[in-house]
Amino acid sequence: MVTHLIQGDPAAIARLITLVENDSPKVPETIKAIHGYTGKAHVIGITGTMGTGKSTLIGTLTRAYREQGKTVGIVGIDPTSWFSGGALLGDRIRMQDLATDPGVFIRSMGTRGTLGGLTSSIYDVVALLDASGKDIIVVETVGVGQSEIDIAKMADTTIVVTVPGLGDSIQTIKAGITEIADIFVVNKADQPGADEAVLQLQQMLDMNQLDTWQIPVLSASAHQGKGISVVIEAIDKHMDFLVTSNRLEERRATRYESELLELIKKRLMHLILDESRLQGTIESLVEKISRREMDPHSAAENILKKILK
Amino acid sequence: MVTHLIQGDPAAIARLITLVENDSPKVPETIKAIHGYTGKAHVIGITGTMGTGKSTLIGTLTRAYREQGKTVGIVGIDPTSWFSGGALLGDRIRMQDLATDPGVFIRSMGTRGTLGGLTSSIYDVVALLDASGKDIIVVETVGVGQSEIDIAKMADTTIVVTVPGLGDSIQTIKAGITEIADIFVVNKADQPGADEAVLQLQQMLDMNQLDTWQIPVLSASAHQGKGISVVIEAIDKHMDFLVTSNRLEERRATRYESELLELIKKRLMHLILDESRLQGTIESLVEKISRREMDPHSAAENILKKILK
Repeated sequence: MVTHLIQGDPAAIARLITLVENDSPKVPETIKAIHGYTGKAHVIGITGTMGTGKSTLIGTLTRAYREQGKTVGIVGIDPTSWFSGGALLGDRIRMQDLATDPGVFIRSMGTRGTLGGLTSSIYDVVALLDASGKDIIVVETVGVGQSEIDIAKMADTTIVVTVPGLGDSIQTIKAGITEIADIFVVNKADQPGADEAVLQLQQMLDMNQLDTWQIPVLSASAHQGKGISVVIEAIDKHMDFLVTSNRLEERRATRYESELLELIKKRLMHLILDESRLQGTIESLVEKISRREMDPHSAAENILKKILK
Repeated sequence: MVTHLIQGDPAAIARLITLVENDSPKVPETIKAIHGYTGKAHVIGITGTMGTGKSTLIGTLTRAYREQGKTVGIVGIDPTSWFSGGALLGDRIRMQDLATDPGVFIRSMGTRGTLGGLTSSIYDVVALLDASGKDIIVVETVGVGQSEIDIAKMADTTIVVTVPGLGDSIQTIKAGITEIADIFVVNKADQPGADEAVLQLQQMLDMNQLDTWQIPVLSASAHQGKGISVVIEAIDKHMDFLVTSNRLEERRATRYESELLELIKKRLMHLILDESRLQGTIESLVEKISRREMDPHSAAENILKKILK
């Protein structure tokens, strides 16, 4: 299956991603086998609140990349899927014309039942797409807090999408966002207030920007296909900057460190739930907490003593 | 300080919460000392997307509880504070009239720099407010995915707030929400479409409701103070249901189990970051991953072998 993946076979990609989704015990050996083939793709993170047209933008960007002859992998992360059941179904439907293109691979990942291990799974999926030879990998998330930070950690280039009239959010966003955004896109720029939104963002950036990379604020209308070439240009320019400034290596090291920590966290949680449950330890400690015979911190200490060296 | 907390001294509450926020090594002994005084408060979780008027509703509910002579603790969780810096500042300002009432304690908690340990900190804060003698503890979060699930796990009664015209969200929410909601409130019921929103929710509930507790769908206008007594009645009724059906004990056991797992996760992550960083283990493994000499899963295995029995 790994050989087929490396040749870019969509069926092999799909099957191996399913292994990751199901937390199969075969995942570690699979990642071990493909790791040598990774590191070639340009990983682009795209984030922004609901209704900013991220999916339309991703669709338009993907079509533009395809015209350049580049292959594209798209991973959608839906932090709300615990409620909606199926992840980003609407978005998948909207991208149907791309779904039949063999140079494009699209997959949505939900959070239901992942035991906080979704982030670690996304790293694995990005690695699989990378090894499959995709030139561009787009990771999309609905931006609220932690999921945006997680996505910025795994991307080479992070695009934050906003729309005119989200002034409130811009206030909320304040300085912190410059820590994750490499490029801002004011989408739906055909709507009133686009110029003001661009100006506002630029002013905010002027106050907070300390880096040598000047974060561009671009306006686009993904729906009308306007401004897309400028966005692609900015993405390319950002990769050039990363390479010439030796930042790419640094950024990827940070990515691997985050991935490593996520993996350890996931493995430890599985370990605790598997082992302690069997021994009834957690149940009996919970009973003691309920009867006020023991407090939660002492109970945690108790379990840690059992599993740690 | 613990003695003062148990007497309800606001300064002691504030100082001990600050210990929790700073992840002080004194937290475990503090929680140990107060655990015997907890379990008396009715913990109410309030969740819903931005703009549904949660804070106004909480303010109005709190004033109503105060008229009944009950004391109230309010904890606001802001999953977006990584960006905004200060958590829910606007909400705190809106509640200023309550801030001077000695029978009310308000605190906002942000996620910045908590290393995924915020949820565990909230449990500690709820325990502190509980031990301080607060009759009602309200935990508020902006609802998106995981934070809503976390809040539902710590609350006796979870209220999901929505507003007229959020039809799309209701579609998204679908069946899953009944897993966390004990009460629905359609706030801003003075706006058009309130009756339709109530009806829609009720129809959704009719299809999914399997439990003996009939989730009520209430309409209110917190701003105008309308419908509040009905909400309070529903909250009381839900607690009666929990007690008479022996569900309270069950629900609290689930709460303690979640708390225990969150604590263990937090402690383990601290341990890994503290110990391995000192030994340079993570750095050297990340280097190997970057050079494709080792894959992330093998590196994780490597670290786990070092710390686990």
